[in-house]
Amino acid sequence: MKAATPALTSMLSGRHARWVNIASSLRDTISRGRLVPGEYLPSSRRLAADLGVSRQTVLVALDQLVAEGWVAPRPRSGFVVLDVPALPSARPPPSEPFQFRLNPALGQWPHVDLSRVRYRMHDATPDPTLLPRSELRNAYSFALRHASASVFEREAREGAHRLRRALVAYLRRVRAVVADDVVLTHGSQGAIAQLAAVLLRPGDVVVVEDPGYRPAWEAFRAVGAKVRSVAVDERGLDVDALRNVLRGRVRLLYTTPTRQYPTTVTLSSPRREALLELTRQRGIAVLEDDYDHEYCYRSSPIPPLACAAGMDHVLYVGTLSKLIAPGVRVGFVSAPPIVRERLLDWSRVTVAGGDAVTLAALSHFIEDGSLDRHVWRSRRVYEQRRDALVDALMKWCPQLRFTVPRGGLVLWATCDGLSSSLVARRALASGLSCVPESMVRVRGTDGPGLRLAFSRLPVEQAPAAAKTLARAVRHVARTHDP
Amino acid sequence: MKAATPALTSMLSGRHARWVNIASSLRDTISRGRLVPGEYLPSSRRLAADLGVSRQTVLVALDQLVAEGWVAPRPRSGFVVLDVPALPSARPPPSEPFQFRLNPALGQWPHVDLSRVRYRMHDATPDPTLLPRSELRNAYSFALRHASASVFEREAREGAHRLRRALVAYLRRVRAVVADDVVLTHGSQGAIAQLAAVLLRPGDVVVVEDPGYRPAWEAFRAVGAKVRSVAVDERGLDVDALRNVLRGRVRLLYTTPTRQYPTTVTLSSPRREALLELTRQRGIAVLEDDYDHEYCYRSSPIPPLACAAGMDHVLYVGTLSKLIAPGVRVGFVSAPPIVRERLLDWSRVTVAGGDAVTLAALSHFIEDGSLDRHVWRSRRVYEQRRDALVDALMKWCPQLRFTVPRGGLVLWATCDGLSSSLVARRALASGLSCVPESMVRVRGTDGPGLRLAFSRLPVEQAPAAAKTLARAVRHVARTHDP
Repeated sequence: MKAATPALTSMLSGRHARWVNIASSLRDTISRGRLVPGEYLPSSRRLAADLGVSRQTVLVALDQLVAEGWVAPRPRSGFVVLDVPALPSARPPPSEPFQFRLNPALGQWPHVDLSRVRYRMHDATPDPTLLPRSELRNAYSFALRHASASVFEREAREGAHRLRRALVAYLRRVRAVVADDVVLTHGSQGAIAQLAAVLLRPGDVVVVEDPGYRPAWEAFRAVGAKVRSVAVDERGLDVDALRNVLRGRVRLLYTTPTRQYPTTVTLSSPRREALLELTRQRGIAVLEDDYDHEYCYRSSPIPPLACAAGMDHVLYVGTLSKLIAPGVRVGFVSAPPIVRERLLDWSRVTVAGGDAVTLAALSHFIEDGSLDRHVWRSRRVYEQRRDALVDALMKWCPQLRFTVPRGGLVLWATCDGLSSSLVARRALASGLSCVPESMVRVRGTDGPGLRLAFSRLPVEQAPAAAKTLARAVRHVARTHDP
Repeated sequence: MKAATPALTSMLSGRHARWVNIASSLRDTISRGRLVPGEYLPSSRRLAADLGVSRQTVLVALDQLVAEGWVAPRPRSGFVVLDVPALPSARPPPSEPFQFRLNPALGQWPHVDLSRVRYRMHDATPDPTLLPRSELRNAYSFALRHASASVFEREAREGAHRLRRALVAYLRRVRAVVADDVVLTHGSQGAIAQLAAVLLRPGDVVVVEDPGYRPAWEAFRAVGAKVRSVAVDERGLDVDALRNVLRGRVRLLYTTPTRQYPTTVTLSSPRREALLELTRQRGIAVLEDDYDHEYCYRSSPIPPLACAAGMDHVLYVGTLSKLIAPGVRVGFVSAPPIVRERLLDWSRVTVAGGDAVTLAALSHFIEDGSLDRHVWRSRRVYEQRRDALVDALMKWCPQLRFTVPRGGLVLWATCDGLSSSLVARRALASGLSCVPESMVRVRGTDGPGLRLAFSRLPVEQAPAAAKTLARAVRHVARTHDP
């Protein structure tokens, strides 16, 4: 073992040099076999006299050797040397690196080098520059100033309890979701992963929308479940197609009815009824991911599936990351008490609770209306960004076909007859990042779809972004035409 | 489906009554079959005239019906009614609750009702009342004021990157652990769970110390691994016994060498060498949980296993929760690059990163020396609390046997010949919470051991706590003597 300075104590007590040196030379003496197991060290008085230090200094050094297991104190006899296995000390470090037996990596994640991106259209995250920084500062400051020390407790009452209450009130008021309580999670991804852990066993099947949200599939696969896909059309998830894939060990349907990911289509009301009826009859739980409910620009959002009376097989997931900022990792689950209990049980073992201070600050932020005002203001900005992108695409990039999204932070377009992977790659080379269809398809198959997020694209950048896309489309059409 | 007011838009736009009512009555008309699929709605002009509202109001209502999937716009023809499956509308909600097929609950967790606890000795968490509140406020305020908006980004550069750098420097300086980088996790429990996810498959065996840390075992079991125990004596984990349990699919050894949990014994140096040699030879990874390294009261801590040259099979886990406050859920893993990469990969799917603002604030807190000062100050307080508890137990509770712990935040005592579960239960009835041996044994067997945490026990409470314990011991001895 490599010698390491007992750094902390030295640094903090300022009383290092002497006893450390004494301990070190005694350690050497023993490890080199000049004192053998069963032998006694000289008395501390004798050592102190020999070394010209105080007896106290010697005792501190001996204490250290006792802690390290070299010697043991014996009443009225001093310190006896303990049995040290005859290991080759100072052996050379192994020449080969240790071979870890790691589980296979999860699905590919697009790593986008942001330093080379001028038009950021790959992630539909809220724009942090729109945040009411002073209101957030006030919320943190309030949490840290007026809260008692218990804000730093694990079960921070002033954080988790208040935030849960604030979220329950918010959900009822804004989303018409009536929850008696919510479980806080590490963003919506944490919610999905926790639900996967408590609901799924290896070999179970989860039906997901295709195209859809890959990180959710990876969370299901991480617990050994299989992912089966169901088609999506212009009215959302195809419930007739769903009927045909509900065979075998299907335990869960993962769906994004408010705004289908990535097509942004809202699931039609008749399909909602049919979906709820069908899944409940078959004993299949529904995981409703309502990730960006509030971003609808003229029509009001349809009430979530979780609003339907008696539909207690719907597990409702949402997140503050999409409403505030991607760095705010606070999601929530509304579910029947038995599921909430199990989620809490499992979250103690994997991730226990959120960050206490941030939870307390967010409670203030919601309670004093800051969140509502922020959503209201930023929704207007995102509507303008959507309109600017729509106008620019129609003017500069007629090759792309799309329906104007009624809500959400992305526009789903198709470059018919072309590979969107090639288009996206070409666009990235020119500084525009977006998500090609292959990233959102269960089997990773290529297609004409492009997911264009506009939440990070300021209005004035829209024309240049559209021109960049048009150049990429033209390039691919020219280069890859037969 | 229960009707829900389109609450958000109404609330935010203030333009609710009219178009909401119009949409609602059109919806009724369709769902009652008075307009059938394929039929067209009256024109928006006609509707506006009939209803005595502006055409704009009618168009907003129609837009909502389109979003809900009742009607679809047809160029130059108005709005056509879509096909609605003939489902029994307004069906009664199901009478039986939905039966979720939940995975079994994880191991028992002692729920302690804190409102009835006067002497809190069950959890060895740092005392939040010792926190330098103004320094923490400053750190948060600095993070929120001087950082750009990017502190709220998911990959918050000013949080995660700086904190990782600060932790790498801290580990080198204070613990002699040389890491090129660390992975941030959701406390040490998050670190253990993430390592379990990337290192273990169902059926794999993890060897753990017994008695030991139950939440870690539960994290291993949560991914389907089996837990096998190895004994602990007064020099820590018994490496000879370890040799005998390393058969079959043992993939990992979980160990707490700095201060064995719960006995607080430090693993002796010779055993460290033997343990490292043995595990590396057998291809078994070592998870070293160094959960409270800094709390040593006279001797300096032994360098962690992860310091040993070439011992790249050691995965080193630590946490700031034990140094700052239980509500601060920031842990870290030092491991070879390939393991760090896989951890990041999996943490994107389950829990992605920490709380951005708190990470940024903690960077400041560490960089400006606040953490060092806090550790130095609080360690003195905990040493006094240890001494007070030791004195009180010797004076008032001679029935308990123990060795004075050289470090850490707990004292491990035995009430020989008695059931510690009965003693703990009796003590709790008198307002003292502590952990009996059964909670820290792999098979949950009863025994004489009691884990007494003193980090939350102020010096002046020690005598009363010791007297309460003594009464509980006497009661059990009297009642359960044969």
